[in-house]
Amino acid sequence: MKTTVGDFLISRLKEAGVGHVLGVPGDFNLQFLDQIGRDGGLAFVGCCNELNAGYAADGYARLRGASALLLTYGVGDLSAICAIAGAAAEHVPVICITGAPPLEKMRKGVPLHHTLGTGDYADVLIAVAQFTAAQARLTPETAAAEIDRVIRTAIEARRPVYLQLPSDVSHVEIDAPDGPLLVGRMSSDERLEAALAHLGRLWDAASAPAILVDMDAERFGYASELLALAEATGTRFAALSTGKAILPEAHELSAGLYGGAASTAETRALVENSDCLIAAAPRFIEVNSGHFTAQLPQASVLLGSHSVEIEGQVYYGVEPQALLRAFLACLPASARPRSGNQRNAHAEASFGGPVPLTQARLWPRMANFIRPGDVVLAESGTSNIGLGREVLPADVTYIASNIWGSIGYTLPATLGTCLAAPDRRQVLFIGDGSFQLTAQELSTLLRLDQKPIIFVLNNRGYTIERFILGMTDAYNDVANWNYAGLPGVLTDRGNFHVRVASTEAELDDALSLAEDADRLVLIEMRLDAFDAPNALRRFGPATAEFDYGPLGPQRVRA
Amino acid sequence: MKTTVGDFLISRLKEAGVGHVLGVPGDFNLQFLDQIGRDGGLAFVGCCNELNAGYAADGYARLRGASALLLTYGVGDLSAICAIAGAAAEHVPVICITGAPPLEKMRKGVPLHHTLGTGDYADVLIAVAQFTAAQARLTPETAAAEIDRVIRTAIEARRPVYLQLPSDVSHVEIDAPDGPLLVGRMSSDERLEAALAHLGRLWDAASAPAILVDMDAERFGYASELLALAEATGTRFAALSTGKAILPEAHELSAGLYGGAASTAETRALVENSDCLIAAAPRFIEVNSGHFTAQLPQASVLLGSHSVEIEGQVYYGVEPQALLRAFLACLPASARPRSGNQRNAHAEASFGGPVPLTQARLWPRMANFIRPGDVVLAESGTSNIGLGREVLPADVTYIASNIWGSIGYTLPATLGTCLAAPDRRQVLFIGDGSFQLTAQELSTLLRLDQKPIIFVLNNRGYTIERFILGMTDAYNDVANWNYAGLPGVLTDRGNFHVRVASTEAELDDALSLAEDADRLVLIEMRLDAFDAPNALRRFGPATAEFDYGPLGPQRVRA
Repeated sequence: MKTTVGDFLISRLKEAGVGHVLGVPGDFNLQFLDQIGRDGGLAFVGCCNELNAGYAADGYARLRGASALLLTYGVGDLSAICAIAGAAAEHVPVICITGAPPLEKMRKGVPLHHTLGTGDYADVLIAVAQFTAAQARLTPETAAAEIDRVIRTAIEARRPVYLQLPSDVSHVEIDAPDGPLLVGRMSSDERLEAALAHLGRLWDAASAPAILVDMDAERFGYASELLALAEATGTRFAALSTGKAILPEAHELSAGLYGGAASTAETRALVENSDCLIAAAPRFIEVNSGHFTAQLPQASVLLGSHSVEIEGQVYYGVEPQALLRAFLACLPASARPRSGNQRNAHAEASFGGPVPLTQARLWPRMANFIRPGDVVLAESGTSNIGLGREVLPADVTYIASNIWGSIGYTLPATLGTCLAAPDRRQVLFIGDGSFQLTAQELSTLLRLDQKPIIFVLNNRGYTIERFILGMTDAYNDVANWNYAGLPGVLTDRGNFHVRVASTEAELDDALSLAEDADRLVLIEMRLDAFDAPNALRRFGPATAEFDYGPLGPQRVRA
Repeated sequence: MKTTVGDFLISRLKEAGVGHVLGVPGDFNLQFLDQIGRDGGLAFVGCCNELNAGYAADGYARLRGASALLLTYGVGDLSAICAIAGAAAEHVPVICITGAPPLEKMRKGVPLHHTLGTGDYADVLIAVAQFTAAQARLTPETAAAEIDRVIRTAIEARRPVYLQLPSDVSHVEIDAPDGPLLVGRMSSDERLEAALAHLGRLWDAASAPAILVDMDAERFGYASELLALAEATGTRFAALSTGKAILPEAHELSAGLYGGAASTAETRALVENSDCLIAAAPRFIEVNSGHFTAQLPQASVLLGSHSVEIEGQVYYGVEPQALLRAFLACLPASARPRSGNQRNAHAEASFGGPVPLTQARLWPRMANFIRPGDVVLAESGTSNIGLGREVLPADVTYIASNIWGSIGYTLPATLGTCLAAPDRRQVLFIGDGSFQLTAQELSTLLRLDQKPIIFVLNNRGYTIERFILGMTDAYNDVANWNYAGLPGVLTDRGNFHVRVASTEAELDDALSLAEDADRLVLIEMRLDAFDAPNALRRFGPATAEFDYGPLGPQRVRA
């Protein structure tokens, strides 16, 4: 069919499930914004800056399966590259589109603004390529094929990708395919049967099967099959911290979090002594593996993105979901089914009264506030560490930047999740230091009348770093903002509630207000600067040892 | 001498003229912050986020000759890479130091947080290398040599550089050189004499000599020699917009701005018909060359960074400053000296009364507010375009992101200039859209009791983009903040004044307050959304033609 490059790209974004384009306008992308406006099927959401837009796109894609991020060349894509790299680390398919200079100027190496002024148009592409799974500079003759290749890669690989759309190419008419975007699964029956037979032999001989979950179970869409397998056979499951709450944590088969020496003896034995461990292929880094004390058994079934490894033998082109479904279909009726009963995880603690807030008592109360179906965003640091140890209700989507660990991520990500799932309640926990990195995106939440519940932990600094090094050093302090005053500066429309809580009674009061609020709620929680969740008290010194070594300053100071 | 890697780096930064380290703490750099604290000779200034810290470092280096930016690996350096690239485009020596993971973990490819989790430790280095003049990952055995090589490159090339300091390497003791950092000039007498003779022949034969200034005259330190040459010989000078106010604009020899067809006929003839044009080698991009209508004569003397090109012949290793000084020394007494009289550029216009503010009348008034010696920061867009056409007093440092054109740059840059030149008055002009990108850095200015005068132009959107495409489209709108309310949210110390001005009388009143204020002043100026400086009314459509070509949407809409 005849269409323009820009219109074809718009149609493919919609096929990928994208409903909103997040970004920042710039002269090299205004022509594409014009096309988006004329099409009418995508809503452009302007963010305050590009990094925030990138984080918002990450949050959006985690719930919608893909997202679109629109930037301008150089100043735009480089400002967002940290978010793009974060999407790569966290396996999130963000489709990044940059309005680039006119194609012929780039081909001729004409120096322009938003460049180094040297005529080099490879530099930005090389930089972004380090963190994306596919890239293309669109030309009229290659646009149709490249758009399909690059968007398909995003979806198949669950990774960010990068398209440069030159400002004079968007409106060029091309011949584009009439058919839909092909997003194929690559299983072959032959390979699937071989893997299934191997899995069956291992399973049948096993006396201690177990399941281990990491983020890829959600990203590649086979979490429900893992749960079905667990329930059909009474198999217990554990999760890495990077796979938290993907399977229901209050489930009677849940064995909690596994992280090598950082886990309980029971959970550790369940995983490490299993003679048939079915695992979403885990990615061990120091923070989810008890500083690399995690150790999987040889008898593991590692579910990859499009392959499966069983006892060290790799079966390429086998989709984990297809394998699990086939395995479930041939389970004997004599398997050990278990109900999906939920434990009553949240025995109501006595909370309230004029007692100062403490980290030890805060997080159980917060876990109790969270309802099934909530989208919960936990910022790196105190929030993710504190909430990470709590058992959350079923059907919660738990969003954190566990591997990339970029502070400031979750506030803009909340904008993305609000847009992606407007019918779910969105709850954000973020510390003051992190909040300050990306605070202005609160403005966009208010401008669009979004209704998240935002908890800002005000404890005057980077608490996670205090517990690593420099407990009282000024470099770990941040300015003491009046967080509850900020929404009133960013909008004059009054579409928010704010509360400040220093005591348990004040927090309870604020939670009552927040429970079913019809507008954005921001609750500033004031906490002692030197208080921390117990897990952080252990994590901090271990991190200092790992980072600085035997002659580091943590030894001198201790 | 025996010292540690970190302490040696600190000593070299101090030798480079650095007094402050701007950045954001992170677990991989806390050990270096510890060393900075113990040394006591450098002050660490924590910023709200890394991009802002990068912009602040850029502003600092423009006044101090070098700056230091301290980040953490991955999330930190990638968040700041847009600022680093901007420093490359604008020829600013920012020394970027990243606290990296433990060296041995990187060597072994161990996946860690702040990485993609793949064991790849080349990706960040490759990305940052695209925009820096030198890079090194410091090891105990190479640190001494690499620190000197990389810092020296920053200073010689006036470009950003990049050092990775692994977290377990900072405290390792090494043998470091006792002598000072060698920053040599590379002139040889032989080459200098050849260039001088060539220049002399061209000059003696010339009847219409002229001088053209671009940013490198300031960056490489020969602006005062150019002015001395002009005054000793009565030679008129023009400046590119990228070289604005480096030579005094009110000087009687000043011919104003040159930009090809965008300049006056008189200025254009002065430059293009010169038979001996002595020029800081200009870097023409579309925005400083009248969309590439600029054309230098064959009889040009192009002063490079460490070379000179005369009538197309290159003399390597000749310092422009040395050449100009030698030339000045051998000028005959019969040259045509001129006094340095300043024109009375600012005839006081009638300004005041209950008249709404307009762009046409605003900028002459603002130019009149600026005093000799001020540091003036003009944000990309309306501010730089509006103020760019005004004649500024002598000894003003005019700071803009002319080539890189990154919006949001100037607010954090003001933090850097305040720290770098505490005795000078700092005046910032920034539009609302730009302000929102980096607004939180106002917090750091207040925390440190800095006293800039900040003008925020509130006209509800990206005005420069409205005039390119989408005059009334929502994508060019931004939220309407209460800008004057922001300082009160970011500090409870009351160390600021705020004013809102919608009329000329209100602005005059605010200017009286700001004139000699003892604290930070923020003046919100409310302007019509569809008003613009005349230069922007011309620039917008020309940019649309350039960017979108003959079939672009600007044709459909016009």
